[in-house]
Amino acid sequence: MTSLPPNSKAHPVILAGTGPGDPDLLTLRAVRAIGAAEIILHDALVDARILVLAAPDAVLIHVGKRCGRHAMSQTEINRRLVECARTGARVLRLKGGDPMIFGRAGEEIAALRAAGIAVEVIPGITAASAAAASACVSLTARGRARAVTLVTGHTADGGLPPQDWAALARLDSTLVFYMGSRHARAIADRLIEAGLDPATPAMLLTNVSRPDETRRLARLIDLADGIATADLAAPALILIGAALDAAVPVATIRADARELS
Amino acid sequence: MTSLPPNSKAHPVILAGTGPGDPDLLTLRAVRAIGAAEIILHDALVDARILVLAAPDAVLIHVGKRCGRHAMSQTEINRRLVECARTGARVLRLKGGDPMIFGRAGEEIAALRAAGIAVEVIPGITAASAAAASACVSLTARGRARAVTLVTGHTADGGLPPQDWAALARLDSTLVFYMGSRHARAIADRLIEAGLDPATPAMLLTNVSRPDETRRLARLIDLADGIATADLAAPALILIGAALDAAVPVATIRADARELS
Repeated sequence: MTSLPPNSKAHPVILAGTGPGDPDLLTLRAVRAIGAAEIILHDALVDARILVLAAPDAVLIHVGKRCGRHAMSQTEINRRLVECARTGARVLRLKGGDPMIFGRAGEEIAALRAAGIAVEVIPGITAASAAAASACVSLTARGRARAVTLVTGHTADGGLPPQDWAALARLDSTLVFYMGSRHARAIADRLIEAGLDPATPAMLLTNVSRPDETRRLARLIDLADGIATADLAAPALILIGAALDAAVPVATIRADARELS
Repeated sequence: MTSLPPNSKAHPVILAGTGPGDPDLLTLRAVRAIGAAEIILHDALVDARILVLAAPDAVLIHVGKRCGRHAMSQTEINRRLVECARTGARVLRLKGGDPMIFGRAGEEIAALRAAGIAVEVIPGITAASAAAASACVSLTARGRARAVTLVTGHTADGGLPPQDWAALARLDSTLVFYMGSRHARAIADRLIEAGLDPATPAMLLTNVSRPDETRRLARLIDLADGIATADLAAPALILIGAALDAAVPVATIRADARELS
């Protein structure tokens, strides 16, 4: 038997996605990693019902960028990750959704590797999949969408991303904008200018998979108006594309939340 | 207490994604649905290690379209689903990956609804997420990819899909072709003709997340040659984009599987 010194760095840092919020959408591997972790660095988007799965003596560190005025920078998060890993503890970095989609995991992986620390990644259910399941609508309906495009709805400084709107409009794809509610009107305007039919169905979802989930179905041209009535502080997702034509009301869609006319 | 007659159709049909193959990537909700199902209709891509989670007396029906010369048509699958649901049993439709991405779930949902049968969907880890986790490379690295586009690599009759290659090439997106290995050379040729840099990194993966997973890293222009050495019968995924620049070898990448020159 070999006994490892406390600074042996024997454990790779694990980056895990929690999925969109509902603890039932965690993978078995993520549940196991949460239970085994000694230090957990987590985002604001990680649900409290997921954090309670941690061991009672685990250290939970909130590194969310939405935790108020003293938001932690990405550089600081990277530094804390390396510092924690160097203690020799089992370190878990928990991110909402899937870490490899709009999670800035690449920067954390690069920082850890530069410090000689191994990394493992556990994928998570990305919000687009959870939204499609929740609304019971396929993202790639035959004859309606040949592709699914996941797009960020804001830049690091909060602006509208400089997308190639003409290419997005031409793709024959279901477009999914992550965290785009603030720019919903601009996104709709750009896509219509680029040639997308203003009558294309669009869906705005907040708090996907959580008890307070909301869904609103609209036409692209009315998207911004639907946003006006949504909780803009909640994590939001916008789906746009002909495939959403199949999004007829289902039992779990509240009638008052459906605004397709 | 109300006792339900056997044909009450009280149970909605559940469509669940199993993720890419590794049972550890099942969600908790999917595990529960598998254990509770009385009839399970499953694809060829659903791993045997997942099917053993079913109740001992559950009826397992293989409806895969790759099960040899007597492939079941989509119409026949839809018919079987409705028939099973009408018995009043708890029916589960299990699909590899995420049901709402290239799973033809929309057609099954439409058939069930037309028969008056309720549907619930459980999302799964889509292959793109699992591939990114496995290769430890973010699909949306800042400055390298603003989006992720999931594209089908073949049509229903096995041909090259009529994509808007120019739009795909212009997107500044990580492109993920599902089941595209047969058309890898044509995909690479079209994208290069459409203006994508021939030196763009590309990765071909087979059997993502399974014990026999393989990964090959190449330049777009060499992609087709990498395919030649792959097992074309295995489910394959092609990732293309500048974000893959970060796909340096990690512990789990076998040196002989890496062909970037």
